Amino acid sequence: MNGLEKLLTRIVQRVNINLREFDFDVALYIKGLVSFAQLETVHGFYVVSPLHTLDFRFSHSNLAGSYFMGKCRTTNAILYKSDIRGDELKKKGSVFKVEGFAIPLTKNEGIRIEDSFLVKTLVHNFSHDPESPERFTISNTVSTHFTNIHGSPTDGSFLGPFVTVDLTTVNDCVIGPYSYIQAGEINHFHINTGTIWVRSAGHFNFLYRFPKSGLRPYISFEPGKQPQGIFIDFINTHNREFEKIFATVNRQTPVTVPDTASLDRFAVVLPQTTIAENVLVAQRSFLQNSHLGKGSNAQENCFIINSTLAGYNVTAHGAKLIGVDLDTKVFVGFNSFLRGRNCRLKIGENSIIMPHTIIDSSTPLNIPADSLVWGLITGKEDLLTNSIPLKKLQKIHSGFSRGNLIFEGSGNSFVAAFQDRILHILDANGAFYNGKKGKGHAQKNQHISFNIIQPYSEGKKKGLYPTIVIKP
Amino acid sequence: MNGLEKLLTRIVQRVNINLREFDFDVALYIKGLVSFAQLETVHGFYVVSPLHTLDFRFSHSNLAGSYFMGKCRTTNAILYKSDIRGDELKKKGSVFKVEGFAIPLTKNEGIRIEDSFLVKTLVHNFSHDPESPERFTISNTVSTHFTNIHGSPTDGSFLGPFVTVDLTTVNDCVIGPYSYIQAGEINHFHINTGTIWVRSAGHFNFLYRFPKSGLRPYISFEPGKQPQGIFIDFINTHNREFEKIFATVNRQTPVTVPDTASLDRFAVVLPQTTIAENVLVAQRSFLQNSHLGKGSNAQENCFIINSTLAGYNVTAHGAKLIGVDLDTKVFVGFNSFLRGRNCRLKIGENSIIMPHTIIDSSTPLNIPADSLVWGLITGKEDLLTNSIPLKKLQKIHSGFSRGNLIFEGSGNSFVAAFQDRILHILDANGAFYNGKKGKGHAQKNQHISFNIIQPYSEGKKKGLYPTIVIKP
Repeated sequence: MNGLEKLLTRIVQRVNINLREFDFDVALYIKGLVSFAQLETVHGFYVVSPLHTLDFRFSHSNLAGSYFMGKCRTTNAILYKSDIRGDELKKKGSVFKVEGFAIPLTKNEGIRIEDSFLVKTLVHNFSHDPESPERFTISNTVSTHFTNIHGSPTDGSFLGPFVTVDLTTVNDCVIGPYSYIQAGEINHFHINTGTIWVRSAGHFNFLYRFPKSGLRPYISFEPGKQPQGIFIDFINTHNREFEKIFATVNRQTPVTVPDTASLDRFAVVLPQTTIAENVLVAQRSFLQNSHLGKGSNAQENCFIINSTLAGYNVTAHGAKLIGVDLDTKVFVGFNSFLRGRNCRLKIGENSIIMPHTIIDSSTPLNIPADSLVWGLITGKEDLLTNSIPLKKLQKIHSGFSRGNLIFEGSGNSFVAAFQDRILHILDANGAFYNGKKGKGHAQKNQHISFNIIQPYSEGKKKGLYPTIVIKP
Repeated sequence: MNGLEKLLTRIVQRVNINLREFDFDVALYIKGLVSFAQLETVHGFYVVSPLHTLDFRFSHSNLAGSYFMGKCRTTNAILYKSDIRGDELKKKGSVFKVEGFAIPLTKNEGIRIEDSFLVKTLVHNFSHDPESPERFTISNTVSTHFTNIHGSPTDGSFLGPFVTVDLTTVNDCVIGPYSYIQAGEINHFHINTGTIWVRSAGHFNFLYRFPKSGLRPYISFEPGKQPQGIFIDFINTHNREFEKIFATVNRQTPVTVPDTASLDRFAVVLPQTTIAENVLVAQRSFLQNSHLGKGSNAQENCFIINSTLAGYNVTAHGAKLIGVDLDTKVFVGFNSFLRGRNCRLKIGENSIIMPHTIIDSSTPLNIPADSLVWGLITGKEDLLTNSIPLKKLQKIHSGFSRGNLIFEGSGNSFVAAFQDRILHILDANGAFYNGKKGKGHAQKNQHISFNIIQPYSEGKKKGLYPTIVIKP
C-alpha cells in the first residue's frame, strides 16, 4: 500500500467512525470512484493575486486538479478536481455581525480541510457560523461529484453527488444525492435523495422532496457504481473542451471582455458568446452561443448554452441553462438544470429559480415575472404545483402545501431573505460597479496568476504533493 | 517605480559597490537586457521527485522561466530563464573530502542566491569550496546570457555572456565574454574576453586567450546592446521549438527511451533522433537528427544536430555539435561550438575538447584519437597550434607554449585531472549503470514532476513572486 492508498484508507475509517450510528460504510460508495492514475497525474492550481489573501499550506495531501484561492490549509486530504475559493473569507480587524453578535476578528479567516476526500466539490465561503468565526473547517468528510459546500463547516459526513449544503453547519450526517440544505445547523441526520430544505428558525421552513422516479433519470448513485444519469452524461459530453484549456499553461482570451468584467482563464468560451460590463465568468464555467448581459455572473461548474441573460442574472455554482432566456434579475440557484429541448424556456424578470430545480421541457415554457419556482418541472402543467407568484407568497403567514412542497411560517420573510441574498451575491460579484464604487469579483479577478502543482510521480509518496507553503 | 524595478536598482547598486575599484557600472550593460514584460509573464518551475532533496524557499524574487531542483533559497534575486540545479548538493551526515580535509556535514548543503540578477545562467553544484561546505552562495552578482556558474560560490561580480566559472570561488571580479575560469579562488580580477584559464596550484597552469578579431563574430557584448554574434543567432534560430514545449503543462515523450535512460520533459527532440541505454538528456537541451550512444549525455543548453555520439560522450552545459561524429569517450566541454559547415567533423576516441573551444570548419576535419583541443579552429591548419596528443602532453614536466597558449607545470597532472573529472561526470550521470549498480541522473531523473510558478500580475508586487516554501 503506498502513501496515497494509506491516506484514503485513513479517511474512510474516520468518516465511518463518525457515521457509525447509521451503520454506514463509505467505502462501498467511493470504491473506484476516482482512479489512482488520475490522482497521480492531474495537476492542481493556486491563485496569486495582490487583491486576494495569499496564504496556503498544503501538507500530506493529494490536490489533483484542484484550485485554491485565499487562505487554505489541507492536511491528510484528497481533493480531486475540487475548487476551494477563499476570496470572501473574513479579514483580520473586521467585525463579523451575525445573529445579533458583533465579533471582532483577530486573524484572517482560513479554510481548513483535514482527513477528507472531496471529489469535484466546490468549497466556498462566506462561512456563516458564529461559533468558529476565524476557521472554516471541513473534516472527516467525503463528498462526491459536484457537491457544493457553501459556507458550511462540515464534520464527519458523507455528501452524495450534486448535494449542496449552504450556510449550514453539518455534523455527522449522510446527505443523499441532489439534496439542498440551508438550515443553520444539522446534526446526526440521514437526509434522503432529492430533499430541498430551507429553514430559518422561527421564521420559515421550506421542505420539498423530489419524486423518486422523476429524479432517477437525472441522477442516481448506488454503491460500487459511478454516479449516473442525465446530469453526468451532460457534463461528460462537454469535458473535452475543458481538457483543452487545462493542457496549456496560458492562453489567449477567446472573446472581447469589457474592462469591468472578468473571464477566468480556465473557463470554456465557444462562439458566438458575448460578455457585457460587470460580468463575472468563473473558472470551470462553460459558455456557448450565449449573451451575458450587464452584471450577470456565471459561477463555477455552470453551463450556459444557446441562452440569453438580460442582465443582473445569477447563474449559481453548477447551474445549467440550455436554450433559456432569462429576463433581468432572474436568479438561478445551485445545480439547477434548465433545458428547452428544441424549444425555448423564457423566465420573466425578478423570478427566483430555487436551488436544485429541474425544468426540462420539450414544449416552450413562459414563466411569468416575479415567480418562485422549485422542484421537477417537465411541462406547463407542473408549474401549477411547482411555482407561486412572489406577491402571493409574501402574503402567506402560516404556511401552505402544494404538490410535494410543505411550507411553514412567513412567506414574506422567505422572499425577503432570498432577495437580500441575491442582492448580496450581485454586489459581491461587482454587478453594480459604476467605475468608482462597487468593485467585486468581476473587477478583482482580472489579473490573477495561476501556479501549477503536481505530486510525486514515484516512490512511497507517489500521488502525494510535497509540503507547500505560500505567503505574500 | 514598482517592486521589481526597485529590486533591480538595489541589485545594480550592490554589484557596483563591490566592483567600485574598477569604476565599473553594471547598469550600462544590463539596461534593456531583459524586458520587464518578460520578467512579469514567463513562468518558472521547480522539481518534485522522491530521489532528490526537496527544499525550496523563494522570497522577494523574480523567477521568470527559471528551473529549480534540490535545495535552493532565493532572496532579493531576479533569475531570468536560469537553471538552478541542486541535485549534487552534499547531504547531511556525509563527509566532504577535499584538499586533505575530511569535513562532516551537519545539514544538507543548499544553494543561496541573494541580491543577484542572473540571466539564462546555469547554476550547478557540486560546489568545491571547503570554506563553506554547507552553503553555496551567489550574492551581489550579475551574470548574463548562458553563463555557467558551476560549483563556484560567487560574490560581488559581473559575468559576461557565455562565461563559465568552474569549481572556483569568485570574489569582486569582472569576467569578460566567453571566458572559462577554473582556478580554485579568484579575487578582485578583471579578466579579459575569451580567456581560458585552468590552474591547479602547485601542479599546472593552462592559459589561452582567443584572438580578439577571431572571437568577435561569435560573441560580442557592448554596453547598451544585447549580446551579439553567431552564438546568439544560432540559439535564436532554435528558440521557437522551446517555446512550444514550455507552452503545455505536460507532453508525450517524442521518442522511445530505454528504461535506463532519461529524457527531460523540457528537452527538444526532433526527428530522427535515437537514444541508447544510460543516456541522460537534460532540460533545455536540443536534439535533432542525431544518435546518442550508450552512456552519453546531453547537458542543459546543449545542441546536438546532425551528429552521432558513439557512446560515453559528455556534451557539457551549453556545448553545441552540428555535423559532428564523436567516437567513444570523447569529451566536449562547456559552451564549446563544434560545427561542420556542409562537411563532417570527426573526433577520435578519448579526445578532450577543452571547455569554450570553437571548431567551425567548412572543410572536413579529422581529429585523431587521444587529442587535447582548445581555442579557435576554423580549418586543419589551426590544429597545429590548438591541439596536442594527450600522450605528448603527459610527458611535459615544465611547460610549453603553442599559438596563444601558455602551459606551465605537469602535463601528466593536467591530463589526469581532466580524465578523473570526465569519469566522475559519466559516473554521476549513470553512464555505467549495469542494472544493479551505478545509478546516476539518467536513472534518477525519470519520474519527476514539475510545478509551475508565476508572479503577481498586478499591483505593487507586479513581477515579484509570492513567498514560496516547499518541503517534502
